[in-house]
Amino acid sequence: MTEIADKIRVIAFDIFGTVVDWHGSVSREVAAMNLAVEPAAFALAWRAGYKPAMAEVMQRGEWVILDVLHRRILDRVLEDFAIDDLPEAERRHLNQVWHRLEPWPDSVEGLTRLKSRYTICSLSNGNIGLLTEMAKRAGLPWDCILSAENFNKYKPHPDAYLGVARTFAVEPGQVMLAAAHHSDLEAARNCGLETAYIERPYEYGRGQPKSVAPWEANTLHSTSIIDLARQLDC
Amino acid sequence: MTEIADKIRVIAFDIFGTVVDWHGSVSREVAAMNLAVEPAAFALAWRAGYKPAMAEVMQRGEWVILDVLHRRILDRVLEDFAIDDLPEAERRHLNQVWHRLEPWPDSVEGLTRLKSRYTICSLSNGNIGLLTEMAKRAGLPWDCILSAENFNKYKPHPDAYLGVARTFAVEPGQVMLAAAHHSDLEAARNCGLETAYIERPYEYGRGQPKSVAPWEANTLHSTSIIDLARQLDC
Repeated sequence: MTEIADKIRVIAFDIFGTVVDWHGSVSREVAAMNLAVEPAAFALAWRAGYKPAMAEVMQRGEWVILDVLHRRILDRVLEDFAIDDLPEAERRHLNQVWHRLEPWPDSVEGLTRLKSRYTICSLSNGNIGLLTEMAKRAGLPWDCILSAENFNKYKPHPDAYLGVARTFAVEPGQVMLAAAHHSDLEAARNCGLETAYIERPYEYGRGQPKSVAPWEANTLHSTSIIDLARQLDC
Repeated sequence: MTEIADKIRVIAFDIFGTVVDWHGSVSREVAAMNLAVEPAAFALAWRAGYKPAMAEVMQRGEWVILDVLHRRILDRVLEDFAIDDLPEAERRHLNQVWHRLEPWPDSVEGLTRLKSRYTICSLSNGNIGLLTEMAKRAGLPWDCILSAENFNKYKPHPDAYLGVARTFAVEPGQVMLAAAHHSDLEAARNCGLETAYIERPYEYGRGQPKSVAPWEANTLHSTSIIDLARQLDC
């Protein structure tokens, strides 16, 4: 691994599902609120609105941050689940759950080790304020928080991936994207970035494990962020 | 101080001169290169090109990051100092000195204390890559790096100050700008931000101490970032 470890300078991390456990965190908060819903199903429904909402923003060409999209989706999902009496303050608080997502058990240690050798940053569709609050709560030791908001383009738009290289004045091939989603990695690879897949079999909950089969096209395949650090001699 | 300490949520820091000692750092590197120049005078001449260069960018309306402006100014200053034989690689390295500026002795401790209570971020005209490398080298514990580059507007444009409040979804009055320059603070105040002046009498070197007299309009006046932390009960 020494060759790839020597070549890259920056590791950018996808966040939702890769560094933090959105499904578990959202489910737990929903459960604690005693809403008349199945918490895991509610979390899945909320998250299901994510990609279409971003696609619509990209199509319209007017920038809207993820906090706002999350809120629009939340209101619709509450309606779908027949919850129409949740007060505004509680909706607002619930919407902020995405700022309070808990890291996977290996995230902080893995990132800390990688930070000793590389510049580590987020590259998330979450907005900067969301990512900052999340990092502060969870102790994620970013050198820099980068977001789709920096580039006014949601992943998988190439400007987001290439924006990382431009920000740090390095070649795309000196940036590695680490993510638990092959589609994200594929888009990064098409921009010339190196890629590391992180296995997160329980991203959608223990009840529905997802395939974490390797794709050959990825530069590295890791069982965790600590495993990624090990593979990169950190 | 409890009232103001309770009101604010975010403290944004000016960087050059406020958190790091550009004059000492640039002078030392220039001296170590054995250029046939007086290092302190060279540092001052380089820095003197800063405001006009940014003003020109703002007037033209096409975004150019500070690394590029620093390089343009450097080439001109080298010419003014009759240095015409500095190789490209050394020019490039020297230009990066702004990524390697040393913090004032109180900066890391002061920021660390403030971070325990507030979201702390940079708000600098330096580009994101520059600020990230500086923070990594110097151990500046930012929750988030914000730059004029986030807003495509150099301070003192209002979008830069108001951009901090927007990023964190707080009111302008919940943001405090900390800076060693009254003009920066004045522009922030005009946008509704709270302001803390930080005394840096030797910003331009021991040879030319600057006035650090208080302006009544500032919310707080501090002798250092540690003193600011103390005043805010951190």
